[in-house]
Amino acid sequence: MKNILIIGSGLIGSSVLRAVHAKKLSRNIYVYEKSKKNISVIKKLKFGCKIINKLDEGFNNFDLIILCTPMSQYKNVITKINKNILNNAIVTDVGSTKESSSKQVRKLLNKNKIWIPSHPIAGSEVSGAEHGDKNLFKNKWCVLIKEKNTKKKYLSKLRIFWKKLGSKVILMNSKQHDIVFSMTSHLPHLIAYNLVKTATDFEKQKKYNIIKYSAGGLRDFSRIAASNEIMWRDVFFSNQKNIISAINLFIRNLNLFKKNIKKRENQQLIKKLINSKKVRKQIIQLKQDIDRPDFGR
Amino acid sequence: MKNILIIGSGLIGSSVLRAVHAKKLSRNIYVYEKSKKNISVIKKLKFGCKIINKLDEGFNNFDLIILCTPMSQYKNVITKINKNILNNAIVTDVGSTKESSSKQVRKLLNKNKIWIPSHPIAGSEVSGAEHGDKNLFKNKWCVLIKEKNTKKKYLSKLRIFWKKLGSKVILMNSKQHDIVFSMTSHLPHLIAYNLVKTATDFEKQKKYNIIKYSAGGLRDFSRIAASNEIMWRDVFFSNQKNIISAINLFIRNLNLFKKNIKKRENQQLIKKLINSKKVRKQIIQLKQDIDRPDFGR
Repeated sequence: MKNILIIGSGLIGSSVLRAVHAKKLSRNIYVYEKSKKNISVIKKLKFGCKIINKLDEGFNNFDLIILCTPMSQYKNVITKINKNILNNAIVTDVGSTKESSSKQVRKLLNKNKIWIPSHPIAGSEVSGAEHGDKNLFKNKWCVLIKEKNTKKKYLSKLRIFWKKLGSKVILMNSKQHDIVFSMTSHLPHLIAYNLVKTATDFEKQKKYNIIKYSAGGLRDFSRIAASNEIMWRDVFFSNQKNIISAINLFIRNLNLFKKNIKKRENQQLIKKLINSKKVRKQIIQLKQDIDRPDFGR
Repeated sequence: MKNILIIGSGLIGSSVLRAVHAKKLSRNIYVYEKSKKNISVIKKLKFGCKIINKLDEGFNNFDLIILCTPMSQYKNVITKINKNILNNAIVTDVGSTKESSSKQVRKLLNKNKIWIPSHPIAGSEVSGAEHGDKNLFKNKWCVLIKEKNTKKKYLSKLRIFWKKLGSKVILMNSKQHDIVFSMTSHLPHLIAYNLVKTATDFEKQKKYNIIKYSAGGLRDFSRIAASNEIMWRDVFFSNQKNIISAINLFIRNLNLFKKNIKKRENQQLIKKLINSKKVRKQIIQLKQDIDRPDFGR
């Protein structure tokens, strides 16, 4: 690849940058960034990449353009960059939801431009270029969105790109993607946020010190609930429909759980708890986590 | 101390055993255990502790008796051991709820016996003697239950015991204890179980592979939801009232969250997400977790 453009260099963007540099995947690397803090981190890396601060002029020679901004910025970014995209350039992103964001980009993008969304399942509760890591994508899933009209040639190019970053690439359509991740990622984050909110409400109500004793479980949720708020606002709004139906299923189950406790339904409760353990085993077999107990850090 | 009796040598009991041995806190250590697997682990430690398999005969010289069985075993254990407890022996436990279990023990225990419940805030999702660790209690909270009639002399003795194991000791009454931990520990565990249940229901409903992509958030909950089912059944049943009111508060907040998403209430949502981050900072300041991002294991 000759020229790659990374738009936004937070945790994910700067990890893409580091990995592309380490693997020498592009002759030139361009980074578009507004945040002075991120720019200063990137300059210190001394990768020789070109930092640009305007999207609407002066360049049109990219092979691959990767949107690594919050999804709410896509409209703004695509509108500016549209006329500078070559017909054989691939435009992709790293956003966490696909159906509505992809439709929006498709609508804004000039006809004949290549748009194939990506979603690397990698990240953390921290944000910013300083936390970037060239190995962030290693052995992690990366979902590429394949719709009926996706051109195989470009899909294959993009697949090779993510594979070179270390990802295990998988194909889904945007609808399927948004359903799967509403349950494995969006709902868990929402639940973590809601648990922390509930604990703080409770602390105010009871006038007890609660947070002080969070080592017993709350702690682990609070880590997840410290994730970037702009990114997660965008996720919750853009995958609204699936997330609401996931919440409804969760509440239905929670009411059943409450009933099991209230009526001391021993067998039903024990069955529920044992089944969870089985899922845990499955998750470890599927290499989504390692089998090492956590005694707190 | 001359003689200590540890009843039950799972994760917590065997950790008490290892710590008591390492710190040389008792001339003799007795362990009551039924599980052959746990007995074999303990024998291999070669601590020279005496393993007993009957509770109702042949000994009565203990200074400290620690119940480390599931709470649902307390009745059985106390009934058997009752007549063998000396008047100046301290009987304690390590159970996760206090109001109902403590009341039950008090009722069964002969008058003039010393009963002071303990709750070390330490553990993991694994169970069994093989996972025990002499440092399990180091720098962790240990709550001692102080009621109006608790005798200071014995409370002070028990406090010194836990301090020697490395714990930071704190006093609460049983009512306060059960309220605090319904929110910091019991609700988070219940929510984790419910999330895993919801994900498996969803997988069946949609006929998609869901669990396979759990690295995006679900994974972390599944670890918590792999905890011992007997222990947690006992917790849910014995702290029924507080847990149900915690669930109700959680559902109320979750419905508000759903409304924020449905009506795209941007400011309210962002405020919620930012506040969670603040709680996370507080948790780290309170040394309930460390400030190291988690990128998956």
